[in-house]
Amino acid sequence: MPSCPVPISEYERVLLAHGGGGKLSARLFEKMIRPCLSNPWLDLSHDGAMIRLEGRRIAFSTDSYVIQPIIFPGGNIGELAVNGTVNDLACCGARPMYISLGLILEEGLEMEVLWKIICSVREAADRAGVKVVTGDTKVVDRGKADRIFINTSGIGIIGEETEVSPASCRPGDKILLSGKIAEHGIAIMSTRTGLEFDSPIVSDTAPLNHMVEKIMASGAGIRVMRDPTRGGVASALNEISRSCGYRFIIREKDIPVAGAVQGACEILGLDPLYIANEGKLLLIVDPGDEQKVLKIIRADPLGKEAACIGEVLDSRDKLVEMETVIGSTRIVDMISGEQLPRIC
Amino acid sequence: MPSCPVPISEYERVLLAHGGGGKLSARLFEKMIRPCLSNPWLDLSHDGAMIRLEGRRIAFSTDSYVIQPIIFPGGNIGELAVNGTVNDLACCGARPMYISLGLILEEGLEMEVLWKIICSVREAADRAGVKVVTGDTKVVDRGKADRIFINTSGIGIIGEETEVSPASCRPGDKILLSGKIAEHGIAIMSTRTGLEFDSPIVSDTAPLNHMVEKIMASGAGIRVMRDPTRGGVASALNEISRSCGYRFIIREKDIPVAGAVQGACEILGLDPLYIANEGKLLLIVDPGDEQKVLKIIRADPLGKEAACIGEVLDSRDKLVEMETVIGSTRIVDMISGEQLPRIC
Repeated sequence: MPSCPVPISEYERVLLAHGGGGKLSARLFEKMIRPCLSNPWLDLSHDGAMIRLEGRRIAFSTDSYVIQPIIFPGGNIGELAVNGTVNDLACCGARPMYISLGLILEEGLEMEVLWKIICSVREAADRAGVKVVTGDTKVVDRGKADRIFINTSGIGIIGEETEVSPASCRPGDKILLSGKIAEHGIAIMSTRTGLEFDSPIVSDTAPLNHMVEKIMASGAGIRVMRDPTRGGVASALNEISRSCGYRFIIREKDIPVAGAVQGACEILGLDPLYIANEGKLLLIVDPGDEQKVLKIIRADPLGKEAACIGEVLDSRDKLVEMETVIGSTRIVDMISGEQLPRIC
Repeated sequence: MPSCPVPISEYERVLLAHGGGGKLSARLFEKMIRPCLSNPWLDLSHDGAMIRLEGRRIAFSTDSYVIQPIIFPGGNIGELAVNGTVNDLACCGARPMYISLGLILEEGLEMEVLWKIICSVREAADRAGVKVVTGDTKVVDRGKADRIFINTSGIGIIGEETEVSPASCRPGDKILLSGKIAEHGIAIMSTRTGLEFDSPIVSDTAPLNHMVEKIMASGAGIRVMRDPTRGGVASALNEISRSCGYRFIIREKDIPVAGAVQGACEILGLDPLYIANEGKLLLIVDPGDEQKVLKIIRADPLGKEAACIGEVLDSRDKLVEMETVIGSTRIVDMISGEQLPRIC
């Protein structure tokens, strides 16, 4: 066994932030997991792997869900787990087809709660048009898990012509967002902290595959798609910028945020750019196709508030900068610690 | 939401036995999960789903691993997770190709332990000839998981002519086993109970796909293959018997069990037929191909002690009976409670 590549003097033990989708998550993956398991598919570190099976292009993705609470405003862990994997596949440019369901249950979980979650899995699968074809159930003793954890993995088909990859980004490309940000994370945090609002903030958990399919069918030049979950829009943009090498600029005034969400962020001391979304699409597109793609997204029930929020700059320094509402600019870095543990 | 189909007066909460691979596991799947998620692939309730993707036959399987302890005689949770999914795919008659790796880590897990486990994942993947192409890491707060849980899902390719399914079983078919049983479960139990033996009992965790590939390539008539994990050989045979409708008979004297394992079973009050294996293949084959298949298995390093242990009877009552060493017969039922929690 080679010696452990993450200096144990620095992090002798796993921290919550190693699962937060920010700098420490990236470090764990880049310094330990990827070098150890290295292969061309994993090295791409996309939301899912794009593989070939007897000549056909397939997307394959996995995600575990450990959200707390398991039932939250706007959804529960069951539909979240289906939508999350459907969205990862869609962001690979794939048509999601089949899903697996791995349940880890804590002894003592109420059967009615499990039933509610399984029903939501079914409803979400129907809505996305995927089938749950295989599964597994494990039970651990009381106190050794937190009610229920779910893993979903998924398979989708990628068209032969489809090419979505950060490497295809070019200066001038436009950065689009399908709607208002930070709703999932703030819905969860409001529940945990007992915050109440006049109009309750609900999770945006939803399947993006139908919207993506329409975009792909239009023939528009799509460079990259991401669903900005853990770590939010800021972390997703930083990841893409690092992959393609270019600097991005985004404009704060153009980023859609609901008033209630903005207010909750101020009360909680959170930046909406770093808050998880579970039903929003972030895209980088050919500048000539900006209006065409926005029109398609806005015609979708999930994309009414789509906006162009920025563009790719002709500078190869892998930074994301933001023009603020007061006209100054600041660097939007990856999140470093753990802002919101167990958000998905 | 339809009302919960498992009467909550009977089981209001999830019990450990709902994950034990026996009667309660089957009940949870058959009464709740399968009816709710019903589709032709899931309804087959094989170790994995056999699906079609643009005309190609694919096996897709998932398993979560919650074993305690995570490092045990003969292996650790990392290689167990790879081998388990490789074996599920192989038992569908597939050539395993791609694996996903979903990690749920407990805050505070030693980085060195995680490194050891990831290295074992790599080694096991290399041994089986599969690639870990996608993954996900989540961290939960201390006390909300038990060090590490792993989900692996996998994809394999099934040949066009391959037909393995319980429905193909016929009276007279032979039941074969690739080697000595109960080693994995007893290795874990010995560790947990502090039992020590002159020659330590170690887990049999191993990838069966190379052996299966040789068997399939021989053209022998293979009805069903299973790797008898949770619930052991007894539960696997009961599941197959229920699927195909026939009665099976097995002969106790022909079932390979190591002396030390037999002794440990007696001390611990356990029946080796119900103990988990992680590197054994259970097959039902055309009687004309019995010797040919045994020869292939015995030529494999993992199959030296392969044996014919019984056959399919011409009686459609879905029972498994055993001729004991003293000449009597008894019914070998599915396990009902939870004999060995968190064995895989």
